[in-house]
Amino acid sequence: MARRIFHALQTLEDARGKIELACPIKPLGVDNVPLTEALDRALAKDIAAPVDVPAFDRSQMDGFAVRAADTFGSEENNPKRLKIIGRIEAGEKPQVTVLPQSAVEIATGAPLPKGADAVVIVEQTEEVDGILHVFKAVPPGANIMPAGSDISSGEVVLRSGAKLSFREIGVLASLGIEKVPVYMRPRVAIISTGNELAPPGGSLEYGRVYDTNTYMLFAALQELGCAPVIVGVVGDKRDELLRRVLDALSSSDLVLTSGSTSAGFGDMIYQIFEEIDPRGLLVHGLAVKPGKPTLAALLKGKLVFGLPGYPASAITIFNQLVKPVLRKMLGQRDTLPEAAIKARMAFRVHLDKGRRELFPIHLIEKSPGEYVAYPILKGSGAVTSFSMADGFIDAPETLQFLDEGEVVTVQLFSDRIKPANLVLIGSHCAGVDTLLSILGEEDVSLRAKVVNVGSMMGLESVSKGEADVAGIHLLDESGEYNLPFIEKMKLKNKVHLIRGYDREQGFVSRRDEPQVNSVEDIVDRKLTFINRNPGSGTRILIDTLIKRYSKKSQTDFESIKARITNYNVETKTHSAIASAVKYGRADAGVATRTYAERYGLAFSLITNEKYDFAVPKDRMEKPTVQRFVSALKSKEFKERLEREAPGFSVTEETGKILF
Amino acid sequence: MARRIFHALQTLEDARGKIELACPIKPLGVDNVPLTEALDRALAKDIAAPVDVPAFDRSQMDGFAVRAADTFGSEENNPKRLKIIGRIEAGEKPQVTVLPQSAVEIATGAPLPKGADAVVIVEQTEEVDGILHVFKAVPPGANIMPAGSDISSGEVVLRSGAKLSFREIGVLASLGIEKVPVYMRPRVAIISTGNELAPPGGSLEYGRVYDTNTYMLFAALQELGCAPVIVGVVGDKRDELLRRVLDALSSSDLVLTSGSTSAGFGDMIYQIFEEIDPRGLLVHGLAVKPGKPTLAALLKGKLVFGLPGYPASAITIFNQLVKPVLRKMLGQRDTLPEAAIKARMAFRVHLDKGRRELFPIHLIEKSPGEYVAYPILKGSGAVTSFSMADGFIDAPETLQFLDEGEVVTVQLFSDRIKPANLVLIGSHCAGVDTLLSILGEEDVSLRAKVVNVGSMMGLESVSKGEADVAGIHLLDESGEYNLPFIEKMKLKNKVHLIRGYDREQGFVSRRDEPQVNSVEDIVDRKLTFINRNPGSGTRILIDTLIKRYSKKSQTDFESIKARITNYNVETKTHSAIASAVKYGRADAGVATRTYAERYGLAFSLITNEKYDFAVPKDRMEKPTVQRFVSALKSKEFKERLEREAPGFSVTEETGKILF
Repeated sequence: MARRIFHALQTLEDARGKIELACPIKPLGVDNVPLTEALDRALAKDIAAPVDVPAFDRSQMDGFAVRAADTFGSEENNPKRLKIIGRIEAGEKPQVTVLPQSAVEIATGAPLPKGADAVVIVEQTEEVDGILHVFKAVPPGANIMPAGSDISSGEVVLRSGAKLSFREIGVLASLGIEKVPVYMRPRVAIISTGNELAPPGGSLEYGRVYDTNTYMLFAALQELGCAPVIVGVVGDKRDELLRRVLDALSSSDLVLTSGSTSAGFGDMIYQIFEEIDPRGLLVHGLAVKPGKPTLAALLKGKLVFGLPGYPASAITIFNQLVKPVLRKMLGQRDTLPEAAIKARMAFRVHLDKGRRELFPIHLIEKSPGEYVAYPILKGSGAVTSFSMADGFIDAPETLQFLDEGEVVTVQLFSDRIKPANLVLIGSHCAGVDTLLSILGEEDVSLRAKVVNVGSMMGLESVSKGEADVAGIHLLDESGEYNLPFIEKMKLKNKVHLIRGYDREQGFVSRRDEPQVNSVEDIVDRKLTFINRNPGSGTRILIDTLIKRYSKKSQTDFESIKARITNYNVETKTHSAIASAVKYGRADAGVATRTYAERYGLAFSLITNEKYDFAVPKDRMEKPTVQRFVSALKSKEFKERLEREAPGFSVTEETGKILF
Repeated sequence: MARRIFHALQTLEDARGKIELACPIKPLGVDNVPLTEALDRALAKDIAAPVDVPAFDRSQMDGFAVRAADTFGSEENNPKRLKIIGRIEAGEKPQVTVLPQSAVEIATGAPLPKGADAVVIVEQTEEVDGILHVFKAVPPGANIMPAGSDISSGEVVLRSGAKLSFREIGVLASLGIEKVPVYMRPRVAIISTGNELAPPGGSLEYGRVYDTNTYMLFAALQELGCAPVIVGVVGDKRDELLRRVLDALSSSDLVLTSGSTSAGFGDMIYQIFEEIDPRGLLVHGLAVKPGKPTLAALLKGKLVFGLPGYPASAITIFNQLVKPVLRKMLGQRDTLPEAAIKARMAFRVHLDKGRRELFPIHLIEKSPGEYVAYPILKGSGAVTSFSMADGFIDAPETLQFLDEGEVVTVQLFSDRIKPANLVLIGSHCAGVDTLLSILGEEDVSLRAKVVNVGSMMGLESVSKGEADVAGIHLLDESGEYNLPFIEKMKLKNKVHLIRGYDREQGFVSRRDEPQVNSVEDIVDRKLTFINRNPGSGTRILIDTLIKRYSKKSQTDFESIKARITNYNVETKTHSAIASAVKYGRADAGVATRTYAERYGLAFSLITNEKYDFAVPKDRMEKPTVQRFVSALKSKEFKERLEREAPGFSVTEETGKILF
C-alpha cells in the first residue's frame, strides 16, 4: 500500500492566508437579472436613483388642493369659503390651475395642481352646493410630499455588495429599475471519490455506503447562493479521477472533491493535484480535528479543495475553509461567521492534546436564553455527528478538557437554527414516536428534539432541568417501576411522575432458530448477545435477570456476565437490537414486542413494564409539555398506539400525575 | 365620489382569529422532490431509516482486523506476531475469514471480515516479511463502528414539518433516500391596483408612480418559500378588476391585492369582494397604523387579502396578517415571529392616541450588543419608510409617547438582518459617496449605513456615540468652519475632528434664465426658492447670507425671510435642490458645484467651504473607521474625487486629525 506522509500540518489561519495570497479572490463578473430573480443576490454596482420619488408634488391625503393663504383665519364656526373648480384622481395629470379663492378636490397620491401649495384634508371641510367650507387653516406645504423628498434623483440608494432582500427589491421597483446588476454565481463542481460509495436511490451492495457528501455539499452551496454542479461518484481509479478533475476545472469556477485524501487511500487526490500542477499545492494536511486529510490547490488558475471523506469532516472543513472563499466570490458584504451563543457544558469532555478541535454540539434551551451544550462524541465517521449538531465548539490545541458546567461559545451552523421547544431525553420508545407524530400534526410550531440515552441519564437530565420530559422504565429490586428510583435519587421535590403506558419486553431471536426464553438459554447455548447501553431501563432489566439467575444457579454475577458472548457489545435503541438479531450480528437481545414484530423476530415475554414520564416541576406549565400530556391522554393516542405498536397498552391511569 | 365607512375596526388578533376560524389553514398537499430541490422545503412525513447506518460492522481506522484475544499481552518490546492473510479495501466485500493467530489488513470504512472482532491501528503495528507485529493489545470492538450503531433501521430520524437544510439533506442521502416528501408550495397571485401605477422598466407619465408592491411582495413570498404569480397592474376599472380577481382565485391558492382599499378610491376592492361573495368578508379595516384600509375575505374557498396601497403599509400588513397564514400552508414548524432585539430610543416620538402603531425603525449598533433605535417618521407613503428600516416597534394604543433613551423591543423584518458596522450620520455629500465606493471595493465586509440629516444632527449623533463618523460643514459667524461649533457645543473632549476636503457651494439656477448670484436677486426677482433642512450646513450658510444682506440693507432678518417665496419649503440633499430647480419646482437654491454640473444648472460660487469629519474619540480605533480615514488620505480618493466631483478638492491637510 502506497503511503505518503503529510507535509507539515498547517493551521486553518495559515491555510486561509496561503489561499488568499496565491489567488486574490474576487467576484467573477456581473449578471443583469430581472427583479423576480434578484432575491438574495449581491448587488454588483452602486445604484443611484434615476428619478425623483415622488416624481411630482404629491397629495398625502384625500382632500382639497388650495392656496394656503386662502385658508388663513378659518375656524370651526367661521369657515373660509372656496369655489370647487375641479377634481384630480391619482395617476391623472392636472389640467386645472388653483386660482385665489378656489379649491380642487384631490385624491391621495394625486399630483398637486398648479397654483396650490397645500392640501386641506376632507375631514376638515364640508361641501355645500359646489362651495367648499374650510374649518381649519393650513400652512403652505401641508399634506404634500414634495417631489424628490423621499428619494432624490442621483442619490445613492443601494451600494455594491448589498444582499437583495424584499426591501432592496422594493426600492429598485419604486425607482423603475427592472433589471439589476448582481455578481455572478460561482459554478462549483462536486466530485465524491471512493470505491465504497453508491449514489442514493439504488440498493446497497455489502460493504458500501451511500454518497452523502455530494448532496450535503450541494445543499450547502445552494444555501450560500452558488450554482453547484454534480459530477457524481468516481471510484479510486486514477485515470478516470484525473480526467474528471480536469473536466471540472475547465467547466466550473471552483472544484470540490471529497474522500481519497488520507494515507489509507494512497493519498490519491494529492497525487492527481500534483500531476496537474506540481507547484499548485497550497494546503496538504490541517492541524485541526476533524479535517487533517485536507488539500487545497490552485490548478489552471482555479481553486480546488480536497475535502476529507467523512461527511462530518467534509462539512466542517467546507465551512471553515471553502465558505469564506465562496462568500468573497459571491461579492457578499457579509463575510462574518454565523452567530455564536454562550452555553454551559452538559458534561466534561477530554480533548486531544496538541490539536485544535472543532467538535459538534447540540443545544438545548433550558430556560429562555439559557443554553446547555451537549457534545456529540460519535466521531466524524457518524452521520449523527452532523445530523444532531446545531453548531460546534472551537477548542484550541492547548486545552486538555472542557469541564461540566463550563461556559463555552457555540458557533451555529446557520443563523436560521432555532432551539427545540420540547426536549425529550431518556429511554427510546416507539410510543414516544407515536406521541410526537400526533403532537406535530396538531401543532405546527412544535420543534421537538429527542435524545435517546436511556432512562437513568434521562432522569438526571430532568433533575438538572435540561430536558422537559424523560421517558423512563426503571425496574427496582422490589419489582416496582420508576417511583423507587425517584425516591432513591431524592428527586420527589424536583420532578413530577406522569403515568405512561405498559409495554411488553422480552427476549428476541430469529424465528428460524430455537426460541430464547432466558439468560440460561444464552449462556448454555453460547449465543452471541447484543446488549443495551448502561443506564437504560432495558440494561437494568437484563442485569436484574442475570442477578436472579446468579442467585438461582449460585454462580457469581460477574462470571455469568463473562460467559455471555458479547455482553460488552452495546447499542442504544430497541430498533438497533432487533436489527442486530435480524441480520445475524447477534443471536439474542432484549427489546419490546413492537420491534420484534417490526423485524419479524421471535419474542418471549419477560415482563409487562411501566413506561412513565418524568417532568421537572417548573416545566409542567410549559405549553408544549401541556400539549404532550394532553396527547398522552387522547383517544387518538390510544387507538394509534394499539394499531402501530403491538405489545403496548394504555391503561386507566395513563396521563395521571402519580405525584 | 362614492365613500364607504369602514366597518368597526378590528384588532390584529381578532382578524387573525376570524381568519383561522373561517378557514382552518393546512398544508395543501405533498410533492416528492429530488434532494437537489429539497433545500428549505418542509418535510411532509416522518422519515424512518430504511437501512442501518453503517450497514455493516465498519473499520474506523486504517489497520488490521484481528481477534482481540490474539493481541492480549502485546507490549512495545514484546509484540504478538500474527500472520497477514489478506487485505480489504473500502467498498469491498470480505472474502477472507480471520482465523486465530492471523490478521487481515483493512482500510478505513471497509467491512470487518468474519472472525475478527477488533481493529489494531496501523501506527501500533509493524510488518516484517508477511508477519504482523502488534505492539499494543486491543479489547473486542476496538476501532469498529458496529452496524446500525450510528442510525438503526426503523428509527425516526426526521419528523414531519422539519425545514430541510444541508444537515437534513445529508441525513437523507446517507440513508439512500433520493426523493423526499415535502409540502407543496402555495401559489400566491399578486395584483396591484390603481390608475397611477406603472410597471418598472418603462418611462413614467406625469402623476404616475412605479408599481413597487408587486415586486416587493414577490420577493417576500419567494423568501418564505411560496410560488408567487404576478398578475400585474390593474387600473381602477371595476369589471376588469373583478375578472382578474376571479381568474386569480381559480388559478392560485391565495390572492393578494394591494391598493384601492381606502375610502378615497371608492373602496373598490371591498365592493368586488362583496360582489363575489357577500358573506365572505372577514376583515374590513384594522385598528392599526399603518394598515387601516385592510381587507380579508374567504371567496370560493380561498383566502384573499386586500392590502393597503402604500408599500410600507402593504408589507407591514403582509408580515402581520398574511405571513403566519402562509407559514402554516407551507407546513413549516417554525411559525415564530422573527428575532427581536432591545434598543434605546434615539429621540422621543409621539404616538397616535387610541391606535396601535407599528412604526419602522432603523438600528445602529453603538457598541457590541448595544443598539439605538431611530424611528423613521416619513410616513407610510415614503419608500424610505421601508427601505431604511431594519424592523419595527409595536406600540399599543394606550401609549402616548416613547421617550428618548427608553428601552424598546424592535422586531426585526428578517433574521438575516445584521446591523451596519460603519455608521455615517450627518451632512449629505458626493465626496462621501465616492469614499464609500472606494471602501466597499477594498473591504467586502463593510456594511455602511448613511443617514443624511445635516451637519448639526450629525455632530449631535457623534457626541452621543450613535454615529461613527459625521460629515459636517458648519460656518461660524467668525468665518471659520466646524471647529468653533465643536468648541461651543463643548465636544472637544469627546470627538476628534478630521480634515476632509474643500467644496464649492453656490447658487444654482436654470441655464436658460438670468443667473442667480445673491439673496438680493432672489428677493428682488421674486424667484421661487428651495431651502435646505434646519441644522444642515447649507441652511446655516443660507441664513448667514440672509443676515449679511439684512445688515447691508438694514432690513429685519425675519422680514427678508418672509419675502423669499417658499423659504419654508425644505429638502434634505444637494441632489434634491438641483432636481427641484432643474424641473422648475423652484427657480433657485444653494448646492455644491458637483450637483449643479450633474443637473446641467448654472452655478454662482458663494464660498469654498471646509467639509470635515467628526469622530467619537473612542471610535478612532474601530477597524472600519481606520479604513475610512485611510481611504480619505488615499491617492485613489484624490483622483476619483477630482474626476467625479467637480468643485471638490483634496488639500495637503486632508485626513489630518485637527485635534
